[in-house]
Amino acid sequence: MDDDSTARLLATLKTWVESAAPAARLPTTRTLVAEHRVSPVTVQRALRTLVGQGLVETRPGVGTFVREVRTARPIDYGWQTAALGAPNARRLGVPSALRNAGPESIALHSAYPDRELLPERLVRGALARAARGDVALTRAPAAGLPELQAWFAQELRRDCPAGVAPPAASDVVVLPGSQSGLSSVFRALVTTGQPLLMESPTYWGAIFAAQQAGVQVVPVSSGPHGPDPDELDRAFAETGARVFYAQPTYANPTGAQWTPERSAQVLDVVRGHGAFLVEDDWAHDFAITSDPEPLAALDDSGHVIHLRSLTKSTSPALRVAGVVARGPSRERLLADRAAESMYVSGVLQAAALDVVTQPAWRSHLRGLRQQLRARRDLLLGTLAEHAPQVTVEHVPAGGLNLWARLPDGTDPRELARACEAAGLLIAPGDEWFPAEPAAPYVRLNFAAAHTAGFTDGSRILGRELDALGIDALGIDAPGIDALGS
Amino acid sequence: MDDDSTARLLATLKTWVESAAPAARLPTTRTLVAEHRVSPVTVQRALRTLVGQGLVETRPGVGTFVREVRTARPIDYGWQTAALGAPNARRLGVPSALRNAGPESIALHSAYPDRELLPERLVRGALARAARGDVALTRAPAAGLPELQAWFAQELRRDCPAGVAPPAASDVVVLPGSQSGLSSVFRALVTTGQPLLMESPTYWGAIFAAQQAGVQVVPVSSGPHGPDPDELDRAFAETGARVFYAQPTYANPTGAQWTPERSAQVLDVVRGHGAFLVEDDWAHDFAITSDPEPLAALDDSGHVIHLRSLTKSTSPALRVAGVVARGPSRERLLADRAAESMYVSGVLQAAALDVVTQPAWRSHLRGLRQQLRARRDLLLGTLAEHAPQVTVEHVPAGGLNLWARLPDGTDPRELARACEAAGLLIAPGDEWFPAEPAAPYVRLNFAAAHTAGFTDGSRILGRELDALGIDALGIDAPGIDALGS
Repeated sequence: MDDDSTARLLATLKTWVESAAPAARLPTTRTLVAEHRVSPVTVQRALRTLVGQGLVETRPGVGTFVREVRTARPIDYGWQTAALGAPNARRLGVPSALRNAGPESIALHSAYPDRELLPERLVRGALARAARGDVALTRAPAAGLPELQAWFAQELRRDCPAGVAPPAASDVVVLPGSQSGLSSVFRALVTTGQPLLMESPTYWGAIFAAQQAGVQVVPVSSGPHGPDPDELDRAFAETGARVFYAQPTYANPTGAQWTPERSAQVLDVVRGHGAFLVEDDWAHDFAITSDPEPLAALDDSGHVIHLRSLTKSTSPALRVAGVVARGPSRERLLADRAAESMYVSGVLQAAALDVVTQPAWRSHLRGLRQQLRARRDLLLGTLAEHAPQVTVEHVPAGGLNLWARLPDGTDPRELARACEAAGLLIAPGDEWFPAEPAAPYVRLNFAAAHTAGFTDGSRILGRELDALGIDALGIDAPGIDALGS
Repeated sequence: MDDDSTARLLATLKTWVESAAPAARLPTTRTLVAEHRVSPVTVQRALRTLVGQGLVETRPGVGTFVREVRTARPIDYGWQTAALGAPNARRLGVPSALRNAGPESIALHSAYPDRELLPERLVRGALARAARGDVALTRAPAAGLPELQAWFAQELRRDCPAGVAPPAASDVVVLPGSQSGLSSVFRALVTTGQPLLMESPTYWGAIFAAQQAGVQVVPVSSGPHGPDPDELDRAFAETGARVFYAQPTYANPTGAQWTPERSAQVLDVVRGHGAFLVEDDWAHDFAITSDPEPLAALDDSGHVIHLRSLTKSTSPALRVAGVVARGPSRERLLADRAAESMYVSGVLQAAALDVVTQPAWRSHLRGLRQQLRARRDLLLGTLAEHAPQVTVEHVPAGGLNLWARLPDGTDPRELARACEAAGLLIAPGDEWFPAEPAAPYVRLNFAAAHTAGFTDGSRILGRELDALGIDALGIDAPGIDALGS
């Protein structure tokens, strides 16, 4: 590959430049071609990158030189502290799920599927086609490409029972990823200072977006089959909240899927309070042993705001999601999106639509289901064997994660640090609780790491738990027994 | 082109489906191939699109059928009105600058350069390369690709005089377009309810973003050489504002460029109030007869937040911009961006960087400068000849627009409606004023329409102004005299 030789040459030249004196002259293109056995084009490409990075400068007809670095003096930005005031959100830093792992670490902390689980051929083909199309040079409409809006509507429509009017394409707003949808929903439908009910535990990115939006987060505890409708009812009544954020299907981190009965009860409560249910259907494409049944398909009265992402299942580079909202809420969201980003790149929209409308997409999803199942069961198995101290109370029927309870008294952050030192990355459960954690948990992603690391990863986890000196308090580990569920 | 035949077939089939009975069977692929002289692949592609749009359904081995539309009943979303409360922003609807023009209209209203002004070959090549690279399947870092961060820093660095420490790559946060930067700056650095000083007139998208962020907009009037420093000083003192939003280079809509003296004075005022200047350098690549001199290059104390967009000059599909911010303000912005969208698609970042680091990019910009000059002067000429009632008080040294004053008493919206009926789209000036307009203006974009329409467009403008029955009040039209400036 040409790209590889450029990258290799670039790395070599960078090292050279870093140790060279300021204003030193680089070898000529001819010399570099001969020494590194690369083409002149490759040399030019590498030099251009170095110029772009400010490391060297080219004087036409003279040569390429190491750039002189101006002496920096320490600058005091202290005045900004008073100008900025206190931030809305507590400082989260980089959340565990977004940390980049070194190639030698076992990455059970991540939020994204391993590259081998992505439809690589479809994605590359779709992007190449988009590069040749009109979308490469035109502005997409504010609400999205009409064909993609129609696709999102159609996906829900398939699940609508008789008697429920399906959503129209015009009820859809295309987003640059579902995180943007969360931010818009919290800003536009909740607004600063107002209460927002959230499942607990729930997706850390939703907690983060809510904090940044300055809304008042009210946790509602949620189990493997969803929240208790009575508790939800009380929370609405006590706080006057008008919005409840939830992940009814393969919740992150717990993997919970609401039963149809529970879904109906929750919808009744939401309707009774004249409120919105924000259904974050993040794992729609990650079913394992059940099928997703979006609540939005059961509601045509505008009470359910439905978020569906394509980023995780197609490619992290295809930042595309859709929100289905009916009535004035859709206008409110569209105004927020227009102010926030005007429109979403048509290239990404066209490429995402291309991927999910290829016949090969359906077969990809079928294969993915098998792979996720094998990965889930493998990790459950290695945990049961090598880290019997952790308890997976609920074997998820979909999603990417196991939500593993630690022995009482364990500090998940301390455990994560100890594991990291031993080469295993895990995500401490605290980050998924809007308030105090109910118990010590870690989230273990079975889709991000190579399966070859599962055994060693589980061994490290078990060993470090032992080293922390806390014994399991006699809680049974149903993980392995529940494998078939 | 294969894409064209698919589009044609699709249009034909859609018309057929719309007039067909529910559950009617579509002609077979073989029939469609024969009748429309297209390939089976084209037929399959068209049918797949129809399925995706929910118009037809395929029963394998049986055929393709028109989908039965469920009977919709009217749904009352009135309950949402109480749940949502009053919106932050007054309702803007679709702003004039974003309206799509029919192919037969003369589009002087638009905000985007005509496709012939875009580096089409570079953009398509860059996207195709990105589709083959690692970026197509990986997640980009939250702050952006390091090489692109370095490029944005490098661009400012070039303009830093001796004694000013240039920004580092790590001072840059990559954004999905500069509109996102505006929203983040207003949310994160101003915060809800706090005052924000803005030039008046100024970019409607900034006004819109400020309203959506719920900040209190305080207009500061600004002329062809920038705002009056004393007036700015008073506005800071009276309101306690800590942020001033401005476009010092080729302002939208006026085309104003601050003089170096004015820039220094404004910076002094901003520093004196311990405040931020948000420098929206939207037209950096659209210089005509002067060169951009970013204020951010003059400041290393963190007082200038610099926004630079690549979307308008490369392609509307490459939604990529960068914000340069030093000190805690950069952290505050990064947290807002992470909550809002996590990261920007690496495909778009890599493609944008690819375009602007090609040698052909520099020659493209040189050609663009000539084209913009010719277009600006042509429109000034046709206006002077056919619409002498309008006055262009300041001939812009860069940017895409003429800011044309109408005879006193003209209603710009009424004029815009009359012109539209006659086939000319213009943007009424009101949308660029944060408060009441100072006088009647229209913004005329000389980069969006085909130049062939300039004469007819100017004729329509002159005729409709006559028809409104308002005479110019003896204001001289310096437009044509100032052509050489």
